[in-house]
Amino acid sequence: MNFNIIRIARTVLNVKDLNRSKDFYVKALGMIETETKDDCVYLRGLEEHTHHSLVLKKSEKLGVQALGYKVEKEEDLERIEELFKSKGLKTKWVEKGKQHALGRALHVHDVSGIPLEFFCEIEKAERLIQRYDLYSGARIQRIDHVNCAVPDVEKAYDFFINELGFACSEYTTTEENRIWAAWLHRKQTVHDQAFMNGEGPRLHHFAYWLPDPLALIHCCDVLASLGYAENIERGPARHGLSNAFFLYLRDPDGYRIELYNGDYLTSDNDFEPVRWDLNDPRRQTFWGAKAPDSWFNETSPFLDIETNEEISTKQPNLAQRKPEFVI
Amino acid sequence: MNFNIIRIARTVLNVKDLNRSKDFYVKALGMIETETKDDCVYLRGLEEHTHHSLVLKKSEKLGVQALGYKVEKEEDLERIEELFKSKGLKTKWVEKGKQHALGRALHVHDVSGIPLEFFCEIEKAERLIQRYDLYSGARIQRIDHVNCAVPDVEKAYDFFINELGFACSEYTTTEENRIWAAWLHRKQTVHDQAFMNGEGPRLHHFAYWLPDPLALIHCCDVLASLGYAENIERGPARHGLSNAFFLYLRDPDGYRIELYNGDYLTSDNDFEPVRWDLNDPRRQTFWGAKAPDSWFNETSPFLDIETNEEISTKQPNLAQRKPEFVI
Amino acid sequence: MNFNIIRIARTVLNVKDLNRSKDFYVKALGMIETETKDDCVYLRGLEEHTHHSLVLKKSEKLGVQALGYKVEKEEDLERIEELFKSKGLKTKWVEKGKQHALGRALHVHDVSGIPLEFFCEIEKAERLIQRYDLYSGARIQRIDHVNCAVPDVEKAYDFFINELGFACSEYTTTEENRIWAAWLHRKQTVHDQAFMNGEGPRLHHFAYWLPDPLALIHCCDVLASLGYAENIERGPARHGLSNAFFLYLRDPDGYRIELYNGDYLTSDNDFEPVRWDLNDPRRQTFWGAKAPDSWFNETSPFLDIETNEEISTKQPNLAQRKPEFVI
Amino acid sequence: MNFNIIRIARTVLNVKDLNRSKDFYVKALGMIETETKDDCVYLRGLEEHTHHSLVLKKSEKLGVQALGYKVEKEEDLERIEELFKSKGLKTKWVEKGKQHALGRALHVHDVSGIPLEFFCEIEKAERLIQRYDLYSGARIQRIDHVNCAVPDVEKAYDFFINELGFACSEYTTTEENRIWAAWLHRKQTVHDQAFMNGEGPRLHHFAYWLPDPLALIHCCDVLASLGYAENIERGPARHGLSNAFFLYLRDPDGYRIELYNGDYLTSDNDFEPVRWDLNDPRRQTFWGAKAPDSWFNETSPFLDIETNEEISTKQPNLAQRKPEFVI
Repeated sequence: MNFNIIRIARTVLNVKDLNRSKDFYVKALGMIETETKDDCVYLRGLEEHTHHSLVLKKSEKLGVQALGYKVEKEEDLERIEELFKSKGLKTKWVEKGKQHALGRALHVHDVSGIPLEFFCEIEKAERLIQRYDLYSGARIQRIDHVNCAVPDVEKAYDFFINELGFACSEYTTTEENRIWAAWLHRKQTVHDQAFMNGEGPRLHHFAYWLPDPLALIHCCDVLASLGYAENIERGPARHGLSNAFFLYLRDPDGYRIELYNGDYLTSDNDFEPVRWDLNDPRRQTFWGAKAPDSWFNETSPFLDIETNEEISTKQPNLAQRKPEFVI
Repeated sequence: MNFNIIRIARTVLNVKDLNRSKDFYVKALGMIETETKDDCVYLRGLEEHTHHSLVLKKSEKLGVQALGYKVEKEEDLERIEELFKSKGLKTKWVEKGKQHALGRALHVHDVSGIPLEFFCEIEKAERLIQRYDLYSGARIQRIDHVNCAVPDVEKAYDFFINELGFACSEYTTTEENRIWAAWLHRKQTVHDQAFMNGEGPRLHHFAYWLPDPLALIHCCDVLASLGYAENIERGPARHGLSNAFFLYLRDPDGYRIELYNGDYLTSDNDFEPVRWDLNDPRRQTFWGAKAPDSWFNETSPFLDIETNEEISTKQPNLAQRKPEFVI
Repeated sequence: MNFNIIRIARTVLNVKDLNRSKDFYVKALGMIETETKDDCVYLRGLEEHTHHSLVLKKSEKLGVQALGYKVEKEEDLERIEELFKSKGLKTKWVEKGKQHALGRALHVHDVSGIPLEFFCEIEKAERLIQRYDLYSGARIQRIDHVNCAVPDVEKAYDFFINELGFACSEYTTTEENRIWAAWLHRKQTVHDQAFMNGEGPRLHHFAYWLPDPLALIHCCDVLASLGYAENIERGPARHGLSNAFFLYLRDPDGYRIELYNGDYLTSDNDFEPVRWDLNDPRRQTFWGAKAPDSWFNETSPFLDIETNEEISTKQPNLAQRKPEFVI
Repeated sequence: MNFNIIRIARTVLNVKDLNRSKDFYVKALGMIETETKDDCVYLRGLEEHTHHSLVLKKSEKLGVQALGYKVEKEEDLERIEELFKSKGLKTKWVEKGKQHALGRALHVHDVSGIPLEFFCEIEKAERLIQRYDLYSGARIQRIDHVNCAVPDVEKAYDFFINELGFACSEYTTTEENRIWAAWLHRKQTVHDQAFMNGEGPRLHHFAYWLPDPLALIHCCDVLASLGYAENIERGPARHGLSNAFFLYLRDPDGYRIELYNGDYLTSDNDFEPVRWDLNDPRRQTFWGAKAPDSWFNETSPFLDIETNEEISTKQPNLAQRKPEFVI
């Protein structure tokens, strides 16, 4: 690789009602509102020193505009452009100033059709980690990862590992030894990007890191107090994969957000990825609780980087199984 | 009342395999084994200064032998005997020494047929609350309450309130304003004894108090590590009723045990019981998660104080509804 | 006893600047402001169903006006009056309506000169225990106890045990077997009222119960974020006595407040008080950390129920020792 | 840099009594004993997938033999050797097999005289992160960092930043804008290596990461239960620098170990190091508590990689100030 992708850095979501979404993310979950401007709300976690990690754009059409990755240097962007062009993939530059608080960005569709975005520059914001007086709700600290359903996980895996320089921390295989799901990272956590076998490309969820397990429990209590009990879709429980203590919520537009605490450091290059078998009883949620059907069946659409239309999807390659073990 | 019942103090359960049960309660849940003697295991929590709060008796026939209450004075026992006799209820004395570590005890069947036991004297044991080196599993502190399914909750309620001197902290009513379930206490917590409408008398669960919410989460992790994931029946979650953070487990013989943290002090005589309506959306689990069917349908039999046979049960008075709101 | 004292129920403090105090108790510690009226702020904890447990009165003269106890019945007040009169102690009625939100109250000076107050009636307020959206700071739940320095602990002990019906949970003795400090309760916690040997009568501290240990740690963080780091006097640490996880703060007028989590149930009449020896190394803070001198030397004055002047104090009976073991 | 140092990976300490040390690290702190062999105990944390991160060697002479860093590739070792030789620094190869469970290692003295060790290969061990039944004491997860007192912090800083490729997360400066202390990292946490102005080179402490703040509190309780209360030197409290919730202990030979939870991710190359001023009141412990004198004055000696004798030390360059702000 002649470029360095640092980490997942932001998601950009279309939402129908900005105030409704802001109430959910700020009042209930405790995200920090950096600013609201031109029909967009920019949110960040308490630990984040960048302007935002979540953009909510008012729109009649729901969908995910981009999963944004931060790179080390400006010139990394050209090199990534070359790579995507060499593979015949669509690319598009968005110049600095066109996206609020961001430098120039390279928008692409990856091999699965996912709208990725790469950028080096993003405005700074005060890290509020020691403003404990502002901690509320889930005490959201920082963006952790995104998880996408794709029809061909192995193709996505190969592209991210071999072309983009990700490492694999854990993965699940079928009896025929095909990769059914994979957890891939650039930063030294279990993942920045996960893929699971399913109709796609679609966004399964995006995830935020919490400071401790009690923040997650308190978040459930706050959600219930504020009338959001039905937004709790799954958990709290422990994942076998990744070891995270987790909670899955559905936001007011149905986007799925995971709150997450407790994985491990992935600094070592000689660590062998953990393999989970479909028939391994431990592949399921560590504590044994079943996930609801909605968790398997409901995902969110991606939007085309040029037309802004919903990206068409394909059925998955591997025979569908209820993926009880997917995180 | 001319007697003073202090609190629920022990449960006596028949189990099929003492070692299997001991592994569950001691290794996984962290109870303290006071001693094992004559085919009985005597267990207590870390806070308890009495010899035990749980007796596991080896027996081929499963069932609950007694729910034991501690009274203030020896003479309270005679007065309680008078009360039960005056109501035409069965009573039986078990002299000191016949039950290990216990003084004499009065065994009775209450108005629902539940085998209750009253005693004043129980051997002391060291309170281990500051032996943190012995804390493991769920760090079980002390017995909290028992919950029974009975066919006529109002009859049970009247007897416990008017004849035994219990106070009601919370209760649930049908649309016709009939009491469907009730939480009653002597000690200053939300309950010692709960009743719910159902085929009975049967034991729904017995419950232990934990020192904090993370002990409950750690217990789930330990259970999964030791291969007990399937023993987790419901939770962790928050009860609307009582406000407790809870977990329901099934022990190796199927008895249901609740681990519990977070209710409130019930010291004040002028506190009005909290009424919950069947149609109140808040009657359900506070966070909105559904309980599994087993939680509603499966309970444990009581044994007759004289014949030691299973007590026959009746169908409930109130039209059955899936009692989603019962704690 | 022909009366029933239920529990410590409120403290009434003179403060110099209402807004400054309100910022501390509400914004930093998370108490609920029931109302502000006539130069008084009325505060309660999230669990409390009564109008307030803390009254802050604007006044140029600092001091504690009353430690208020709730009794079971109105007629208990007459009986308590008789007792105090029979001992030649000063009493005074304050009729209903004279103290906001309170029924009539009996004000007295006890055998140590402490201004106690007894009342049965207090206005209700909504219990906010399940309004988790309002939880902030230390998530203060309910008033737990008060601790007074008195010159003759044994005299105070005898009066509270033999005349007022308190029970002793733990106590400390000198080598000559004199009681140096004692923890006494009516409600089923380790204490409502503690006494320690010292110049007095003076208030050492009043204490609130927290829902869990992390609330205490978060409170430290919030205090530091808001510029109150210097108000943290001692802790967080564990008490050997009572087993509580504790934090001592000084409010803007210097009153000492303890935040407290983790003692044990004191329901059983046959539990023997725990005796601690001055020379027992475990008498100190369980983790071994030293308390600062201010904690030993600084206390707050009580005011006379009639003259409203500071009550004069006496030097303690027992030779002063640095009371490292006092909670 | 033509090599890649991954992270701090182990410390090697001489201890006087192996069993005494093992009791402390395994029974009290909850480390996992991988094996004991040839007068050495090899310990690891619950998350670690490598054979050990702490070696305790029986020896009559106390001292630190090495601070060991893991590198990405075997050939990195030659490149690091070249660097150290080019600077005139002492180097020494220890072939594979000479140190149990380790590949070949390069031992050096750095510009401050600290005995560093670099290696690529270390035997694998089972990651026990999901063996919650083995969690005890502090539930130690993984090695986090080491902190050394050196006489010339700026020299050490320059060497680690410019020659070894570390990044600085936070640092403290005097009024004259000289670097007084610095926190440097390779892995994406606040530090692998910290330096502070002081007589040196000496080891101030080594540190382990805990899974959550309650593990730290529980560790204090376990230490007190087992008679180790006097081994608690400082904390629990919050660092201003790094934001960590911390506890400092002294092991049976006086080595200082920090238990640590709660810093932040340092993945971004454009994050500006946080500068703290000596006169900034926030430089102190975030909650304001003072550290004891021992924490400032007592450190442990390093041993020479060739002679195995104590390395001689120098007084610090910067006028001594009580470094209240050092983490």
